[in-house]
Amino acid sequence: MSLLVVGSVAYDSIKTPFGEEKRALGGSATYFSLAASFFTAPALVAVVGEDFLADDEKLFSDHGIDISGLQRAAGKTFAWGGEYSFDLNSRTSLFTELNVFENFKPILLPAHKEAEYVFLANIHPSLQKEVLTQIKKPRLVGLDTMNYWIENAPHELAEILKLVNVLVINDSEARELTKEHNLLKAAKKILAMMPAEESTLIIKRGEYGLLMLSQAFPKSEDSKDNMTIFNLPGYPLEDVVDPTGAGDSFAGGLFGYLAQTHNISWENLKKACVAGSIMGSFCVEKMGTKRLVNLTRDEIEERIKNFKKLTHFEA
Amino acid sequence: MSLLVVGSVAYDSIKTPFGEEKRALGGSATYFSLAASFFTAPALVAVVGEDFLADDEKLFSDHGIDISGLQRAAGKTFAWGGEYSFDLNSRTSLFTELNVFENFKPILLPAHKEAEYVFLANIHPSLQKEVLTQIKKPRLVGLDTMNYWIENAPHELAEILKLVNVLVINDSEARELTKEHNLLKAAKKILAMMPAEESTLIIKRGEYGLLMLSQAFPKSEDSKDNMTIFNLPGYPLEDVVDPTGAGDSFAGGLFGYLAQTHNISWENLKKACVAGSIMGSFCVEKMGTKRLVNLTRDEIEERIKNFKKLTHFEA
Repeated sequence: MSLLVVGSVAYDSIKTPFGEEKRALGGSATYFSLAASFFTAPALVAVVGEDFLADDEKLFSDHGIDISGLQRAAGKTFAWGGEYSFDLNSRTSLFTELNVFENFKPILLPAHKEAEYVFLANIHPSLQKEVLTQIKKPRLVGLDTMNYWIENAPHELAEILKLVNVLVINDSEARELTKEHNLLKAAKKILAMMPAEESTLIIKRGEYGLLMLSQAFPKSEDSKDNMTIFNLPGYPLEDVVDPTGAGDSFAGGLFGYLAQTHNISWENLKKACVAGSIMGSFCVEKMGTKRLVNLTRDEIEERIKNFKKLTHFEA
Repeated sequence: MSLLVVGSVAYDSIKTPFGEEKRALGGSATYFSLAASFFTAPALVAVVGEDFLADDEKLFSDHGIDISGLQRAAGKTFAWGGEYSFDLNSRTSLFTELNVFENFKPILLPAHKEAEYVFLANIHPSLQKEVLTQIKKPRLVGLDTMNYWIENAPHELAEILKLVNVLVINDSEARELTKEHNLLKAAKKILAMMPAEESTLIIKRGEYGLLMLSQAFPKSEDSKDNMTIFNLPGYPLEDVVDPTGAGDSFAGGLFGYLAQTHNISWENLKKACVAGSIMGSFCVEKMGTKRLVNLTRDEIEERIKNFKKLTHFEA
């Protein structure tokens, strides 16, 4: 086991202009580990309630996901309901029932403390730190967060950022965290909050792709203004049905690829971003996890190849 | 003379959060030809009034732009005033004084009728057609338009689209023209309005780059769903001061590069998009045309090289 993710496992009720799902398996750790499972065998640390279905447990196992760290607690599984706007660009939370998540204490099994690749999905920064301090010798630590923690737990977030190598956030979060509209300016401020010389920031821009910016590769050819930058457009899609989990699937593809290849060079981080983007692109094509759970490795390979064709140019 | 542009030459009064200009040289043909002048010697067809300054005329000549087609008319030069929002993503027109532009009749000089590369910048579709019918044997015809013509001259626009090889519009225009939110779906509908097997559509997405989609290269390796696609992110910039003219500078770089290299293969169209994007990226760094008029060929080459580094990956 070399990749560990801590995050949420939830039952999502989602409404988009193209479909509706009630109590479908969701949560950041779910999307992350499903996406990562195409590259490596991830281990998941999360909590579920007494209502968690055996079928959903089996789904994880069928994908080679280690759920020995999936705690069972008295009560109900975390449940979330949301509705998307016509163009899928904004969503409204209809309800958020923390349930068993409210008292979640992530206690790692001995095997999980040996993880080399660790991803702290979007949960309270204090919980993220509790997990991280239990890991003996992490090789690469990734983190996701959200506006809610930027606003409500800024000090705890600042603390954990000092321990993170790869921060994965979206553009509005990068702007809110720094009060800078320009993403390059925001990126410089965020990288300054992370470990000097060892930090990489990935700013997700939804359908527009991502910017990866790093202080960790000062000698790279791509370096500019002391930041090394990679700019990847979004994979163009004709049918986008449900954006839920796209960001977590991206992170799962990213870290799954890194754990599989065991290589954190700049060139390989770029490839990992491509793998992550492709996993996000599949995720949104059907409601919930429906596309991910039926995906094949061949489809992934084909789309990665196609992505390269779509974006490469000589100059 | 192989590249001809017809469009507007104007005096722009621009206010952005970062600066203000009054009666600065602007207009679609101005930005287009300045950007194109770094690659080839374009000819400009437009109209100005009695107030047009000798210094501005000299500026064109100093950049090797053929202004023998710049008509003089009694009255004032077209004047436009606009103000941008804080994030530069939206702008309000403060005034639009058509002046001499109102009665503009583009009559081409004999030399200009021989043009091989023709760009019909954003003016009334009927005027665009009047120009195009005077060209004897165009090799490649490009066109820009805007929401105003989509709403107010849809039939004339549909007519000219049947004669255009390269349509350059932005994402909101593509959506409005087709009533399709998804850009791939919109692109299919737009390409169907253009000459079969000979049409390419470039959808500009502002800071997010562009999508180029074509029916003209069915045998290309990049082909997918009968469309050949190229996806280029925006060049990341730290200082964006004034977006005015970015789209016209893109088109000028695109067609300037194509006219210079005299090659309309798919691979070369991609390179031309890169050249165009780079010209747009320079344009927005200073108010009005200030960055373009002082640009050097070396700066362009360096940024193109850097753009490749920023975007390429192995997979």
